[in-house]
Amino acid sequence: MPALAVREDLHAEIESRVRALLDERLPARGDYGTTFEALRRAVSERVLGGKLLRPRLLLEMHHALSRGTRRGCSPDRTVTLTIAAAVEILHFALLVHDDVIDEDLQRRGASNLIDAARRSHASPTSPAALHWGRSSGILMGDLLLTSVHQIFARADVDHATRLRLLDLLEHTVTETIAGEQTDVALSDGVVEGDLQTILTMTANKTATYTFEFPLRVAAALAGSDSDTESRLAVLGRSLGLAFQLQDDLLSVFGEPAEHGKDPHSDLREGKMTPLIAYARMTTAWPVIRQRFGCADMSVEDAAEMTRQLHACGADAFVQSLIDDELTAVRTAVTQPAGSLPPAAGEILLEVARRIEGRRS
Amino acid sequence: MPALAVREDLHAEIESRVRALLDERLPARGDYGTTFEALRRAVSERVLGGKLLRPRLLLEMHHALSRGTRRGCSPDRTVTLTIAAAVEILHFALLVHDDVIDEDLQRRGASNLIDAARRSHASPTSPAALHWGRSSGILMGDLLLTSVHQIFARADVDHATRLRLLDLLEHTVTETIAGEQTDVALSDGVVEGDLQTILTMTANKTATYTFEFPLRVAAALAGSDSDTESRLAVLGRSLGLAFQLQDDLLSVFGEPAEHGKDPHSDLREGKMTPLIAYARMTTAWPVIRQRFGCADMSVEDAAEMTRQLHACGADAFVQSLIDDELTAVRTAVTQPAGSLPPAAGEILLEVARRIEGRRS
Repeated sequence: MPALAVREDLHAEIESRVRALLDERLPARGDYGTTFEALRRAVSERVLGGKLLRPRLLLEMHHALSRGTRRGCSPDRTVTLTIAAAVEILHFALLVHDDVIDEDLQRRGASNLIDAARRSHASPTSPAALHWGRSSGILMGDLLLTSVHQIFARADVDHATRLRLLDLLEHTVTETIAGEQTDVALSDGVVEGDLQTILTMTANKTATYTFEFPLRVAAALAGSDSDTESRLAVLGRSLGLAFQLQDDLLSVFGEPAEHGKDPHSDLREGKMTPLIAYARMTTAWPVIRQRFGCADMSVEDAAEMTRQLHACGADAFVQSLIDDELTAVRTAVTQPAGSLPPAAGEILLEVARRIEGRRS
Repeated sequence: MPALAVREDLHAEIESRVRALLDERLPARGDYGTTFEALRRAVSERVLGGKLLRPRLLLEMHHALSRGTRRGCSPDRTVTLTIAAAVEILHFALLVHDDVIDEDLQRRGASNLIDAARRSHASPTSPAALHWGRSSGILMGDLLLTSVHQIFARADVDHATRLRLLDLLEHTVTETIAGEQTDVALSDGVVEGDLQTILTMTANKTATYTFEFPLRVAAALAGSDSDTESRLAVLGRSLGLAFQLQDDLLSVFGEPAEHGKDPHSDLREGKMTPLIAYARMTTAWPVIRQRFGCADMSVEDAAEMTRQLHACGADAFVQSLIDDELTAVRTAVTQPAGSLPPAAGEILLEVARRIEGRRS
């Protein structure tokens, strides 16, 4: 089985389950008037805009881990698919509140939920329209967060497994929110942006819910022992950190035509990344800081900052952090004392390869 | 038993359970650094600032309904107290997101969570400090909403009762959010403020979670039949609507020294209430609208608007709506065909009396 390969059937299955869950959990069309219905539609149109990385990882890992368990121990695939879809809904709920906090109106190269609500206003450029957009983001995010908890709480598994799933959900939401809170604290100047704080923030905000969570949920649903789950937690955190660091590198040094993001938005928004934390400790910083976080940053400014970041060794430093995390994963998977089933290890190695070769 | 009487022991019991639940569910002190710990403390200091109306109503009604059920059918009091405390935490979580949306910095006559975060900033009057305050409100609200769901999902009751509790929680959160969304849509000019829309919004936003929810949860925990629960739902909605309409009246016509709120804040904020919806249909409106929703409204302006609202009959109209709802409750409780146990009916009549005599 080519792990994490583009399996269109899997993609379609997840999409259809996400839609079915939202139809089931969100109030029926028309129940609360036309404005609510418009927001519900705006959610439905956007919830499936991603690559489904998290639910796919969960399903692949569950498949790999279930091979080794006793027949009958693992819940049927319907439950796993439902929980995987809920993990994608959680991702979207977190993005919506992130966008409210970051005051963003774009997501995945298109108008986001906030912007959709804003544009539905009779005077779309008025402060009232923007307030309506952001308030809608807060409220629909709350509703989606509620749906995710409802799906986990109703999972058709034995009570002990359900409690294990609820533990994982609570740990994940808490850690993600703590990470996001540090991220905001960094950009609002509440805490100092030293390297360790930024690395911990990155791991909490992204690594936990993107890799650790789907991997541990897969273990819980496959009936794996706690040792396997703990190992997956550690390896998931390493993969997640490497994934986000690679993302930070791509945002500054990658090809916008390939990664599809707003070119140099991290530099323009003054985002505190390990790349910047490193540069701040070098003599390149006085030059970089001049235009760092300036909304009117030009293409030339961006080019100069990129040059400086490279010259001071920030990219090489972040690359070495990525290499360390991926090496740790490879070593752990291949060591003979490892308690992971070979198929599970294969998936982690494939993820590591993909992170390494990532261009988008 | 004097229903809803000031029972200090009950109050203390609920407070202590709320504290214990937050200690259990929110991450331990120090886990996520000092800024997170400060927010956690700001939550703890504010979560118990209310009158505990909702958990007390739940506990009283549960006590009344349990008298009639078979011994052993109803879960022990610990579970009921836990769920009642979770209902109060939900109330606080909703208030926090409400304050973010309304851009309020005060709650219950004191600095709210958003303001506490803002003031912790090195430059408390800077835009970054306000952004930090509001973002903290969104994130801590998310965390509290998560905690409430976790408490319901882990309730130590049989699976069918747990699903019934989860149904009620989902219905309540959805309805409250739909109501809040209409409230924002009204103030941002997205929908028209006709009387029916405003009454439905009021019932959804306040009546459901304040009265219908605690009453139905009490029925579910007491093992009452679905007919009893349905009757409580209808009566709870009537009581909730009367309660909120009385609140609207007090805000404009009451004594600030008694109700303790910011005098005339509803008029200053341009809040769309049934009082205003009625006045808009009268010849008094051209005078009222001149200063309605003006941040710099003077004491004289407020006095003139209050006079006009009285002269056009808006207060008499709203009072008649309150009377209708309370009469409906009294009739339903006292009719011989009623399926409510007498003790339960007594509580509803006592609530109706209290709403009628409310001065704060």
